Amino acid sequence: MADVADLAGVHTATASRALNPSTSRLVNAATARRVRTAAEQLGFTPNTTARSLRTKRSFTVGVLLPDLTNPLFPPVARGIEEVLTAHGYTALLANTDNDEAKERLRFEALRGRQVDGFIVGTARRKHPLLDDARAEGVRIVLVNRTTDAGSFPRVAGDDDAGMRAAVEHLAGLGHRGIAHLAGPQVMSTGVTRARAFREAATSAGIPVARSPVLPTDAYTVQAGAEATRELLDRHPGITAICAGNDLIALGALHELRAAGLDCPRDVSLVGFNDMLFADEFQPPLTTVHVPHHALGAESARLLLEWLEGDGGPDGPGAKTVLLPVRLVVRASTAAPAAG
Amino acid sequence: MADVADLAGVHTATASRALNPSTSRLVNAATARRVRTAAEQLGFTPNTTARSLRTKRSFTVGVLLPDLTNPLFPPVARGIEEVLTAHGYTALLANTDNDEAKERLRFEALRGRQVDGFIVGTARRKHPLLDDARAEGVRIVLVNRTTDAGSFPRVAGDDDAGMRAAVEHLAGLGHRGIAHLAGPQVMSTGVTRARAFREAATSAGIPVARSPVLPTDAYTVQAGAEATRELLDRHPGITAICAGNDLIALGALHELRAAGLDCPRDVSLVGFNDMLFADEFQPPLTTVHVPHHALGAESARLLLEWLEGDGGPDGPGAKTVLLPVRLVVRASTAAPAAG
Repeated sequence: MADVADLAGVHTATASRALNPSTSRLVNAATARRVRTAAEQLGFTPNTTARSLRTKRSFTVGVLLPDLTNPLFPPVARGIEEVLTAHGYTALLANTDNDEAKERLRFEALRGRQVDGFIVGTARRKHPLLDDARAEGVRIVLVNRTTDAGSFPRVAGDDDAGMRAAVEHLAGLGHRGIAHLAGPQVMSTGVTRARAFREAATSAGIPVARSPVLPTDAYTVQAGAEATRELLDRHPGITAICAGNDLIALGALHELRAAGLDCPRDVSLVGFNDMLFADEFQPPLTTVHVPHHALGAESARLLLEWLEGDGGPDGPGAKTVLLPVRLVVRASTAAPAAG
Repeated sequence: MADVADLAGVHTATASRALNPSTSRLVNAATARRVRTAAEQLGFTPNTTARSLRTKRSFTVGVLLPDLTNPLFPPVARGIEEVLTAHGYTALLANTDNDEAKERLRFEALRGRQVDGFIVGTARRKHPLLDDARAEGVRIVLVNRTTDAGSFPRVAGDDDAGMRAAVEHLAGLGHRGIAHLAGPQVMSTGVTRARAFREAATSAGIPVARSPVLPTDAYTVQAGAEATRELLDRHPGITAICAGNDLIALGALHELRAAGLDCPRDVSLVGFNDMLFADEFQPPLTTVHVPHHALGAESARLLLEWLEGDGGPDGPGAKTVLLPVRLVVRASTAAPAAG
């Protein structure tokens, strides 16, 4: 670092500040450029590991996501990265595969690397790992899902409004038998959407017997297909389905096709998320658009506020930020056939 | 660490070894369990940052991917993570958005965090960042794409065989006018697939004038739509398209539809990758299946061999591992209409 400072003709402290993403703003732009050029000429890479021991900061944020192959999560990750990068932080992503053991392993690996905080998309309603870490002072912002204890700042889509819009759309088309294939009830999204469905169906004057809720055990195509099979067996009279998410909806689409039923002629179908390619399905899926990129960006802003602000260890507190969602009507919904 | 060792009744070195994922194999399983329990009771998290300064190893691997929202990359990331985790390493993923400035920033951020090596999916044919890092001794394995200099171990799908299978399938159906919408020629995959197309078309006896190659400037839906518009203008006689990847194929599908052409009745279409949901499109896409999860897993194995083996600084050398691919025939290809 002293050599870099010499070559750039500045004090060592200035060179150090210029090469630290979190302090480079404090250095005149032309000077910072000169320092960076000098560092490049000398092949100097700031040793962030050594620096983090001195400053107790790593300028690194751990991001836990449950399943990168569910197309809703890559845009969340991208939103997080864009905001963190702009502030000199690096996001370290880890995929938990919805597996508690993997999650614990990766969470502890990231803690061991002294990350400054976490953005967590893997919350379950009961989540001792997160509760314990919070109690120990670890800074954690939740994205999308939350825990029942609810002691974390959190960003999510407005699931309640989204499900209401879906049910009102179907009721408005004339449907009087609407089922909900609910997401896993161990996750807050599964519970919130199911509750909103129940309330919206009641508001629309649809009796409980004509608005069954079938829970699934995973947000997957396979779970959606299985629940649809059960639905067709037990409730042959329904003419529309609200799915807990788009993957469940896709499983429903497969199962309807296998049963010789046409969507939307025989059964209308609404998804949730508006994930990548939901508009390419046969038929293109009517669904609730959730702004996943914005969810990621907003959660990163909440965490930065905590890390950089003077809010103390409690930071933004357990506030919930809900971003607006909107129904996107495509070809999987139509009025029910006469009779 | 001394307290943990005391509580577990072992030497400090044994406790340290038991809690280090890369050395825990050296400790008797029952002892390791006792140490872990003790660490848990004391709320002890090994300080990996301090450890990495002592051992010059971070047990961390940087993974650069060009675009997590392209559905082929999440399975690559998952394959990498599974193998690394099983060996006590953590993958730190970074998304470059196909942007050279972001790539340099994240590469340097990861180097500054003393990662032990890199798995890079962002290679371009000319890539001074990677060449310079390699010259400085950084351990880098390439996945999917490669550089012209070619001084890296690398894992990819057998693009050549895949494109040949696609052309032979179309020629076998009777097509005598087949276009290739090539990927960007600054990437090895774009060049390899275009060359294979040219050779396969010649082998099938299709004249060059009836097998045009139109390069795109990105592996995106939009680039595919633009190239298809140009194709329909300039080569109205073709009856089949081989796309450089599935996103380009999807753009072609949109543009054919916009031009009032039916796929496959008027124009047959083959993609490349068999990305998530390629089977859900209208029509379901015939495409070349590339084993992306295996690509990731194999690239992680190559890097581990380098990091843990005694192959010295050159490790596995610049060997190329090509994994087999296969054509998946769905509904987007058919015999050309008579006449």
